[in-house]
Amino acid sequence: MIEAIEPLDQDIMEAAQARLDNLTKPQGSLGYLEEVAKQLAGIRRTTDLRLRKKAILVMAADHGVVEEGVSAYPQEVTPQMVYNFVSGGAAINVLARHVGAKIILVDMGVAFDLESSPQLVDLKIDYGTQNMTKGPTMTLEQAVLSLERGIMVVEKHAKDSGIDILGTGDMGIGNTTASSAVITAFTGLPVEAVTGKGTGIDNETLEHKIASIKKALLLNKPNPNDPIDVLAKVGGFEIGGLAGSMLAAASLRIPVVIDGLISSAAALIAYRLQPLVKDYMFAGHQSVEIGQTAVLEELGKRTFLDLGMRLGEGTGAALAMNLLEASSRIITEMATFSEANVSEAITESKVES
Amino acid sequence: MIEAIEPLDQDIMEAAQARLDNLTKPQGSLGYLEEVAKQLAGIRRTTDLRLRKKAILVMAADHGVVEEGVSAYPQEVTPQMVYNFVSGGAAINVLARHVGAKIILVDMGVAFDLESSPQLVDLKIDYGTQNMTKGPTMTLEQAVLSLERGIMVVEKHAKDSGIDILGTGDMGIGNTTASSAVITAFTGLPVEAVTGKGTGIDNETLEHKIASIKKALLLNKPNPNDPIDVLAKVGGFEIGGLAGSMLAAASLRIPVVIDGLISSAAALIAYRLQPLVKDYMFAGHQSVEIGQTAVLEELGKRTFLDLGMRLGEGTGAALAMNLLEASSRIITEMATFSEANVSEAITESKVES
Repeated sequence: MIEAIEPLDQDIMEAAQARLDNLTKPQGSLGYLEEVAKQLAGIRRTTDLRLRKKAILVMAADHGVVEEGVSAYPQEVTPQMVYNFVSGGAAINVLARHVGAKIILVDMGVAFDLESSPQLVDLKIDYGTQNMTKGPTMTLEQAVLSLERGIMVVEKHAKDSGIDILGTGDMGIGNTTASSAVITAFTGLPVEAVTGKGTGIDNETLEHKIASIKKALLLNKPNPNDPIDVLAKVGGFEIGGLAGSMLAAASLRIPVVIDGLISSAAALIAYRLQPLVKDYMFAGHQSVEIGQTAVLEELGKRTFLDLGMRLGEGTGAALAMNLLEASSRIITEMATFSEANVSEAITESKVES
Repeated sequence: MIEAIEPLDQDIMEAAQARLDNLTKPQGSLGYLEEVAKQLAGIRRTTDLRLRKKAILVMAADHGVVEEGVSAYPQEVTPQMVYNFVSGGAAINVLARHVGAKIILVDMGVAFDLESSPQLVDLKIDYGTQNMTKGPTMTLEQAVLSLERGIMVVEKHAKDSGIDILGTGDMGIGNTTASSAVITAFTGLPVEAVTGKGTGIDNETLEHKIASIKKALLLNKPNPNDPIDVLAKVGGFEIGGLAGSMLAAASLRIPVVIDGLISSAAALIAYRLQPLVKDYMFAGHQSVEIGQTAVLEELGKRTFLDLGMRLGEGTGAALAMNLLEASSRIITEMATFSEANVSEAITESKVES
């Protein structure tokens, strides 16, 4: 599957650029929206870029490290929020409705038995991960399984209902701790430089969160050259699942909008497994969580939005999806100079922007 | 009318903040979206903030200064683009449809006779302004008339069809020259610091554009303490019209989303006439045009988007309108902790964000 991921189609991207330059506006004047349209064309291998079927994949799981007291919220909030997603009252429900996206909600490893629901896909690997300060968070088999289940859920939904664009999201008390640990393991950056306050802990708890990550990395020694090892030593089931979903999307030529810190940690795993996957990704927003920045720099990604958000769930991805759709509509629906009988520039000179 | 503009309603804003803090998310975790919801509540004096009726006011006019060769496009592009707006093929048509907004298209002073259309409001003041390098762009009577017509068009549409939120946009070859001149006149900043490449002129033409603005300011000596004088000396009919529309919107408690440079110049005129108007404004996006930054700083406005856009027409305002609507839906539709049976934080500490 990973080998099925191909580079973007350069010919289609050139055709998209030619069309963009012919639309009734000064060349390049829609800035990043034009670059996005071109990238979408390269991903989807077509200039019919309409995004009819939008989906946001929200993966939920628990984290053993919460025993250490690294979060402002108790672990029971994970299943409570899953039920909130099922009943449609959470921020991601509101924003997904707002942008016309369907939510694919998956239990990857919530530490509670959840009532079954047609709106909840049960792919539970275990009742939460193990505490990373005492050993690996999961077995190698579980790590591979989380990737495979992420792949499976995207392949299934793409086949059954179609997906024109996929956003990624997460729920799981403790998952910023796991994500910062994953990012540190890969990048070698100081833990302090990639660890933030998550749902809103105080400075003392932040220090303890940083110390817990340091302890876990020292104990487990994840190998930065082996993404599955990093995932197994300090990752989470939803992080592995999201990484798998991104690889599957790329193999199916589906653009992916990554959300905040957790999705970024997953994106880094996917990228280290297959560098080509980054060309299929868009960064939804700049999160308040500082660890995300390191990932976006490594992937060379510009963000659509910088609104001071730090909620997760896929909320930043959902908002950005509307801008991606705007971009797809620009290239699809705008009139060209000749269609609209508009005069072109006397001397066109591209402004660097 | 200007005296009818009131400060925002602090009691409703506090009620909005209390509701935001009770929604199923860490407090403040939706960042600027939460501040926006609070401001919307203060503007509209209600916590029912749904934005059902969205309108983008696009005002077109010509500018005598184009004689000087300050634009990359010939003046005939103004009417051509107006027809493109009428037939639905321009970027603003695509983006307005995308965000579910109606376009109110107004001829404030295009230098050509336009075919009448039900989609075009004829409020033409004159066939373009005069060349600012040779004298004032308009008479004081015309300046007042442009403000009044901007007020009238908003009052009429609000009465006839209702407007829950208003975006502003513009069309007119030469209008970045007029806007930069207006901003320089008010702020006293060097012309170089507020003048950009507009539709995409080369460096030589940019130098000539700057020289033309300097010449116009030296000749006409607009009084920075008299907004009508500034408008009459170096402004434009659409700039005056947009300033009037913003004042009318504020008096009717309608939030306004300002677009790029031209809307910002108009916003500065409105603000200098009535400082309270700024609380009714949102800055849609950060334009590539550097003159906009000076205005946003004076008004103390954060932008929603920074996508390297420089097209005008209201395109940045349209995209931001979707984010304002997201904000209004968050406060309206999200479940509270008690409604969703979700546990609150063990120790809630607000993260500065």
